[in-house]
Amino acid sequence: MINSNEKKSSNEMPHIVILGGGFAGISAAKQLVKAPVRITLVDKENHHLFQPLLYQVATAGLSAADIAEPLRHIFADQKNLTTVMDSVVNIDLASQEVELSKNRLRYDYLIVALGASTGYFGNDQWTQYAPGLKTLDEATELRRRILLAFEQAEIAETKEEVERCMNFVVIGGGPTGVEMAGAIAELAYHVFADEYRNIDTTQANVHLIEAGPRLMAAFKEKQSDYTARRLEKMGVKVHLNTKVSDISADKVVAGDQTFEVGTVLWAAGVEGNAVARKMQSLELDRAGRVFIDTDLNIPEHTNVFVVGDLAHLKDARGKTVPGLAPAAMQTGKHAAKQILRDLKGQKRKPFVYFDKGNMATIGRSSAIAEVGKIAIRGYPAWLAWLFVHLIFLIGLRNRISVFIQWVWSYIAWHRGARIITKKLPSDQSIN
Amino acid sequence: MINSNEKKSSNEMPHIVILGGGFAGISAAKQLVKAPVRITLVDKENHHLFQPLLYQVATAGLSAADIAEPLRHIFADQKNLTTVMDSVVNIDLASQEVELSKNRLRYDYLIVALGASTGYFGNDQWTQYAPGLKTLDEATELRRRILLAFEQAEIAETKEEVERCMNFVVIGGGPTGVEMAGAIAELAYHVFADEYRNIDTTQANVHLIEAGPRLMAAFKEKQSDYTARRLEKMGVKVHLNTKVSDISADKVVAGDQTFEVGTVLWAAGVEGNAVARKMQSLELDRAGRVFIDTDLNIPEHTNVFVVGDLAHLKDARGKTVPGLAPAAMQTGKHAAKQILRDLKGQKRKPFVYFDKGNMATIGRSSAIAEVGKIAIRGYPAWLAWLFVHLIFLIGLRNRISVFIQWVWSYIAWHRGARIITKKLPSDQSIN
Repeated sequence: MINSNEKKSSNEMPHIVILGGGFAGISAAKQLVKAPVRITLVDKENHHLFQPLLYQVATAGLSAADIAEPLRHIFADQKNLTTVMDSVVNIDLASQEVELSKNRLRYDYLIVALGASTGYFGNDQWTQYAPGLKTLDEATELRRRILLAFEQAEIAETKEEVERCMNFVVIGGGPTGVEMAGAIAELAYHVFADEYRNIDTTQANVHLIEAGPRLMAAFKEKQSDYTARRLEKMGVKVHLNTKVSDISADKVVAGDQTFEVGTVLWAAGVEGNAVARKMQSLELDRAGRVFIDTDLNIPEHTNVFVVGDLAHLKDARGKTVPGLAPAAMQTGKHAAKQILRDLKGQKRKPFVYFDKGNMATIGRSSAIAEVGKIAIRGYPAWLAWLFVHLIFLIGLRNRISVFIQWVWSYIAWHRGARIITKKLPSDQSIN
Repeated sequence: MINSNEKKSSNEMPHIVILGGGFAGISAAKQLVKAPVRITLVDKENHHLFQPLLYQVATAGLSAADIAEPLRHIFADQKNLTTVMDSVVNIDLASQEVELSKNRLRYDYLIVALGASTGYFGNDQWTQYAPGLKTLDEATELRRRILLAFEQAEIAETKEEVERCMNFVVIGGGPTGVEMAGAIAELAYHVFADEYRNIDTTQANVHLIEAGPRLMAAFKEKQSDYTARRLEKMGVKVHLNTKVSDISADKVVAGDQTFEVGTVLWAAGVEGNAVARKMQSLELDRAGRVFIDTDLNIPEHTNVFVVGDLAHLKDARGKTVPGLAPAAMQTGKHAAKQILRDLKGQKRKPFVYFDKGNMATIGRSSAIAEVGKIAIRGYPAWLAWLFVHLIFLIGLRNRISVFIQWVWSYIAWHRGARIITKKLPSDQSIN
């Protein structure tokens, strides 16, 4: 309704446009619930996605709907907010307009929270062979490939083909790569162990390839060592200091090795949303994230904030703000608060990051967690991880559903969402 | 493993091939759990699907995984059974072989339980505009269209476009059509009522079009009247004696009316699996189902059974066997039992259908049910429907998950799976 938007913008109330319904975007929107403003929240999907549990969708532990909540439902009661499902084409800073695929929105304030997507460091041709894990569609595609790999192995005609199908390569030793490698190992070595007749799924190979000298580089070195030991105990083959130089339909070349593979997963990098690259006045880092200052503004546009994973900044104390959910929430909230200060005629404040720590899971009963100088691992860290992720998941229904599935998986070694669905049109793979 | 299959077929044990992992196929397989036979169960999907709840996936009430269970998991402990995920290309009765897309299987006994798919009575060009509801992929596609229709209405530029987007036409007044019309009405008039800002979803139109003189023709006339009254109370516009003559991208012509539509659903007919049509020796009815006798055999091939929805037969008492889950289970089981009788040198028995009754839901707190001469409706029928469907759903995890989602939906008027996923490549729609 382009006309009604235009009409409303002649209202007294300032129009705040928020691009992106991730952690940063919804935190900003919620901060403005009582403000005398009109808010338009734009997202290309109809749902907020709880990305930290996405790997469990990709490995058949959870259903897509368990970790996604419709944005309209989240904001049903926030009457100053309109949700628009559309994709962002460009941002015109001069005319203060956002170009969507079906519409244009004029803004008084703009909060850009478009996040990051999978990045291949210039090797975009790898996309089709090695999907990343940033969206629900990528997760269901990975699930399809992983489950199908075992089905193909079961009916393969040669021993070589069976081996290839059961070769999994996960590229990138950060949290996503570690979680995926651990979860695939659990599928192959436990969940599927009794279910195939022609293949022995415990003979599958799960390789985790990391270019750097250790896994989980954002954590303390002891935690990295623990992670590698745990993974190896679970059956994962960890390759450190190993750089991937080529990926093709059924091969990964890494270091001096060539892996004949059935399934490859890319968890080695992300890059800022492509819209930022289109805006030539912005200064971007190598990963396409926008350099901003502690005011979270784009230079010379104090009414335009960049928050969440798309922002590259150090906070007011000089601490680098990491690409984590708590940081996204804090930057989103801070931007909204500055708008409120403007409206009240108060002076703005610089952003200070409150480090809530960091945690990641490795597999059943093992995880690592750090808060400040405290570092824990193993079972206590795993329980903490479960607890924190349940609490931060949006929607009571989702929490109940996820909790039950976790208990079930733990007791029965069963995975609740082992469904192979059809290939998506965006998928160029030859599989 | 084509070679290993060939090798094994020289074993002493008879090889029983079951095509299809629906109700009929898995009932047959389970009947043979202790038999000295080798069983190969073939399905093009990796899961058994609980079709009676498919409409709830299409209307965002349940996730796909809630009503699907991996076939391998169902048969993990049945060691005489191998599951093959592949599609059936043809059946060669003379050489006793099944041609799969990647393999050939020689059988001693064959149980054909390939079921039915959506049928358009020769109007296959309607497929793209009006998908049916027989598979998970069709259900997620319908969910996408229904949810997207409201999103498109919200940003539509003209009143006419808003109206068109919110016009839903369901074709076919049997159980699927009634369930879908009722569920769409609940979405529009209750679930979505507070969530949109530019449109009033309670102004949506849900049309249910039936060519015959009454809805739910398989039930008693009183039940049909009750169903129509209930649906109208829920806001559905019921059109009886109205035959659809054309469907195009945004129009449905039915009787003397033309509906400008956003979303169309075809629930007016099914037809037997296409493999039956390829086998020219078989006699088929108009819907492509195989005419068989009470021995459930293909004429002159006593080792080939046709069971479930693909079979057209009257039982030993002259009663027509309906296309319902209990009938599919009974025919599947009966075929397996005749194989066991053969192996023991016993005489075969003709099939006798035990009528367990019939039930269908209309919407919240209302359903119809019949067993013999007893006919109930309303709240008691609805509770009975919930109970029976929970009991027959395969997998304890699925039962718990579905139960919780039902309780949640009932209390909160919320739907748990409101996710718009990407379009499938098989979908030719212009939407």
